[in-house]
Amino acid sequence: MKIAIAQLNYRIADFEGNLNLMKNAIRDAEKEEVDLIVFSELAVCGYPPLDLLEQRDFIDKCSESIRLLTECTSKVAVIVGAPVINPNEKGKKLYNAAFLLSEKKVLAIRNKTLLPTYDIFDEYRYFEKNIEFNIVKFKGVSIALTICEDIWDDQPVENTFSRTRLYTISPMDFLAKQNPDIMINISASPFAANRLNAREEVLKQNVAKYGIPLFYCNQVGANTELIFDGSSMVLDRNGIIDRLTPFTEEVRSYVLENLMSPANTGAIEFESNLSDEYRTEMMYKALVFGIKDYFRKMGFNRAILGLSGGMDSALTLVLAVEALGCENVMPVMMPSRFSSDHSITDSLELAANLGVTCKRIPVDPMMDSFLSQLVPEFEGKAEDVTEENLQARIRGVILMALANKLNMILLNTSNKSEAAVGYATLYGDMNGGLSVLGDVYKTEVYDIARYINRNREVIPYNILEKAPSAELRPNQKDSDSLPVYEVLDPILYHYIEMKDPIAAIVESGFQREVVERVISLVNRSEYKRFQTPPILRISSKAFGMGRRMPIVARY
Amino acid sequence: MKIAIAQLNYRIADFEGNLNLMKNAIRDAEKEEVDLIVFSELAVCGYPPLDLLEQRDFIDKCSESIRLLTECTSKVAVIVGAPVINPNEKGKKLYNAAFLLSEKKVLAIRNKTLLPTYDIFDEYRYFEKNIEFNIVKFKGVSIALTICEDIWDDQPVENTFSRTRLYTISPMDFLAKQNPDIMINISASPFAANRLNAREEVLKQNVAKYGIPLFYCNQVGANTELIFDGSSMVLDRNGIIDRLTPFTEEVRSYVLENLMSPANTGAIEFESNLSDEYRTEMMYKALVFGIKDYFRKMGFNRAILGLSGGMDSALTLVLAVEALGCENVMPVMMPSRFSSDHSITDSLELAANLGVTCKRIPVDPMMDSFLSQLVPEFEGKAEDVTEENLQARIRGVILMALANKLNMILLNTSNKSEAAVGYATLYGDMNGGLSVLGDVYKTEVYDIARYINRNREVIPYNILEKAPSAELRPNQKDSDSLPVYEVLDPILYHYIEMKDPIAAIVESGFQREVVERVISLVNRSEYKRFQTPPILRISSKAFGMGRRMPIVARY
Repeated sequence: MKIAIAQLNYRIADFEGNLNLMKNAIRDAEKEEVDLIVFSELAVCGYPPLDLLEQRDFIDKCSESIRLLTECTSKVAVIVGAPVINPNEKGKKLYNAAFLLSEKKVLAIRNKTLLPTYDIFDEYRYFEKNIEFNIVKFKGVSIALTICEDIWDDQPVENTFSRTRLYTISPMDFLAKQNPDIMINISASPFAANRLNAREEVLKQNVAKYGIPLFYCNQVGANTELIFDGSSMVLDRNGIIDRLTPFTEEVRSYVLENLMSPANTGAIEFESNLSDEYRTEMMYKALVFGIKDYFRKMGFNRAILGLSGGMDSALTLVLAVEALGCENVMPVMMPSRFSSDHSITDSLELAANLGVTCKRIPVDPMMDSFLSQLVPEFEGKAEDVTEENLQARIRGVILMALANKLNMILLNTSNKSEAAVGYATLYGDMNGGLSVLGDVYKTEVYDIARYINRNREVIPYNILEKAPSAELRPNQKDSDSLPVYEVLDPILYHYIEMKDPIAAIVESGFQREVVERVISLVNRSEYKRFQTPPILRISSKAFGMGRRMPIVARY
Repeated sequence: MKIAIAQLNYRIADFEGNLNLMKNAIRDAEKEEVDLIVFSELAVCGYPPLDLLEQRDFIDKCSESIRLLTECTSKVAVIVGAPVINPNEKGKKLYNAAFLLSEKKVLAIRNKTLLPTYDIFDEYRYFEKNIEFNIVKFKGVSIALTICEDIWDDQPVENTFSRTRLYTISPMDFLAKQNPDIMINISASPFAANRLNAREEVLKQNVAKYGIPLFYCNQVGANTELIFDGSSMVLDRNGIIDRLTPFTEEVRSYVLENLMSPANTGAIEFESNLSDEYRTEMMYKALVFGIKDYFRKMGFNRAILGLSGGMDSALTLVLAVEALGCENVMPVMMPSRFSSDHSITDSLELAANLGVTCKRIPVDPMMDSFLSQLVPEFEGKAEDVTEENLQARIRGVILMALANKLNMILLNTSNKSEAAVGYATLYGDMNGGLSVLGDVYKTEVYDIARYINRNREVIPYNILEKAPSAELRPNQKDSDSLPVYEVLDPILYHYIEMKDPIAAIVESGFQREVVERVISLVNRSEYKRFQTPPILRISSKAFGMGRRMPIVARY
């Protein structure tokens, strides 16, 4: 039997588009005499559909897609994810289902059991949990057909205050009793650079435990905050046989008998290359892909961003140029009286390296204009953060005016360290349709910059080497108000990703007063992050939908 | 036996403050010879604590509060809500628990079964669901002790695409078999003006079904978006006996024997006065309370807002003055070349009526300054929405500069109709630390204004009577680009609150093309609402945490 894995890029609520993607894949599979093609979790509507699942019209369109897809299965059978209505009077209205379609009929429907409700996942908000376990028979092969987390039951959840097994039952344990020949798992599992091997480990554990091959189909594509890398895999009982290209649409087929043959010499060793450089490369690819797909799906070609002469905007520019092309990115320098000369020269050098044209608009005239109108209110009051914010906001207004007039999306250039401690101005440098680096710590920003510069000096060394500064007042440096990033970032990682208690962070080698100050800064800037642009998520815990904190609290 | 209901205003994560509130209530209860005092759901930490529940330090502080509270129960027993660690190795790490503390001991812990996962609720994200049902004995009285939704099991959930019973089991049915004498329910149930009677109906159904008295304790207080009205109640088998004052901290005690005595003549008829005026009055009270508590808990006294001469900012000003006092609210007029004369005169009249001083800062100088710097980019391009947005953003910058310099919170004045269709400028009139009217439809804005004017002309009639306009270009009217609000608002309600399919909305009396256009506007402005300020929620479906929609989707 020939089984194909279709790793496709779906668009949420684009029923016609998603259906056409799948139809094309089926047509190609017919030519290759594939017996069964596998699409990913909730493929008909795209993942995550969020509260669209609460709309009757949306569910009806999902059902219609399944009907139309069923019509295409005269030669190739299909496994595909879609929501399905729960026929019971009680419980959530839907199941998160996998359909097996063959010869223009629905052969089987299997529902998801382990519904994730952590980080960005809220599946129990929409779906009832399955409690019946039956394998599926297709052309004499018994398939344990599961959806995403259903094969993750045995995974301890890290990063809660003590490790715990999230789920109380194991769908695969039930299914294994029925002696399946293979496992097929359809998924929608997002990328996380600090969990690069987690998915592979789970898949390997499953084949080791149950001793049969596993076909793992994940979607690829970026949906606002979430980046899905695909990285679909095929495993035999010994380990990974093949892995589809990350961040790429791809369909590959496999002859089942070869996988199951005793002559099979075992897994090709697909090393999870977990070197720091590989991880940095994956972050780079994820960010470029995240920008590219956001623009495509929003129907925009062009990006604008402010270029300060600092590291963050330099990196954002490089990523945007890689994603959209140098002709489609407009960097704007907006120097003020506090800007250093090297801000301009470094920015111009970077722009020249990338082949982009840099606009230059000074902010002092607007600064003077605002300040002269505010004289009656400001008179006699000392300069403070107000004037710094004012500069940042004038820049934000300039960038938005250009974005509106020239039909571009503004890219936000703040990094995760700044976003964490609130070192940013609401309605100023926090503006943007998409935050590119909002889930990238400052130390990781440098890692990616060095990765980009590995062969030639794309980002001027001067940008990499100077001390980080917001340049909002004379001789300002980030380290005036913050610990150095080599101290700040690990504390933030302990607190945000790992949710470690203060005592544990201190124990790992930081001063208590520094730890407490950093955590206090994080908590007290929740009000700013509430209004953050969508942030490309590349870690297991980004700011945004996956991290929900009260604003009004005693912090 | 004397039972007291303590309807208190907790602050999230303020363990010391919350503990002191409860200790004071216990001290007063001792004087009144109360046997048992009841505090609300998760009272020790405040509700909703959100992802703070994932932090070990936070849970430890909750446990410490329970320990300290237990020490205070030598004379008066206590029922209080707190998270408790799930001792099992599998499943979520916590339970949402009710503790019965008496004579310095933990007498019983009962866990919540029905964990809400809809709208703003994500309890299954944190808590394992209870599956054991046992009544609690205290001084010879058998108590069915439940938490919030545990007595809502029999309620069909409205507003999903067809009515369904959310939960598959009924905790009270299990408990009823053990013949309890009374029910005690501790809650954290937010206010919703379009569900004013829902809570009372549920409580009445419970006493009717089980034939025993019910003590219902709800928290009061505003926590950013969520407003808890309290409205705690006592019911005997015939209906409501007493209801605590909404939006007010209060402790009241009841002699159980009087409630249960056969001589009891039955429920005092507490009519749910569901007249439109009552509903409007409750919205007014909720909004004033929401502002007041937000400022108190954020540690601010003073508010600033832009006063345009239109209805929304006029109403916001009245509400802010009521909440904070006229000396603590700074309205700012920011006229442009497009502002009408009546914008100024009406604003001044309103300010005079309220005893507030109005600032006046023109925006044209800044407008000219920006436009002259933007000439190279804008030359030869027609005026469009860019220039309108620019005005709005200059106003946003002015207001934020004043807010920063004078230590005030900016109040956002957009209404729900505008927020729904995206009729607002990001980083302009969408600015603010709190959106006062973001959950109030334009037609409801007028209702509340008329309610305020019921005795005297607080808001000048001219403001109520003129056609709504953003005044961002000559002779602009809202109705140039939007259906009139009498058509727009009901369509929005059908789509947002009721989640009705298009066909059903059309059937209820609207033109299909208007309905489709409105829904398209709502969907296409998700990207703006992603960056909205927190909105005071006064309906069953506000923009914010309770409504989660993809930005990147085919709308």
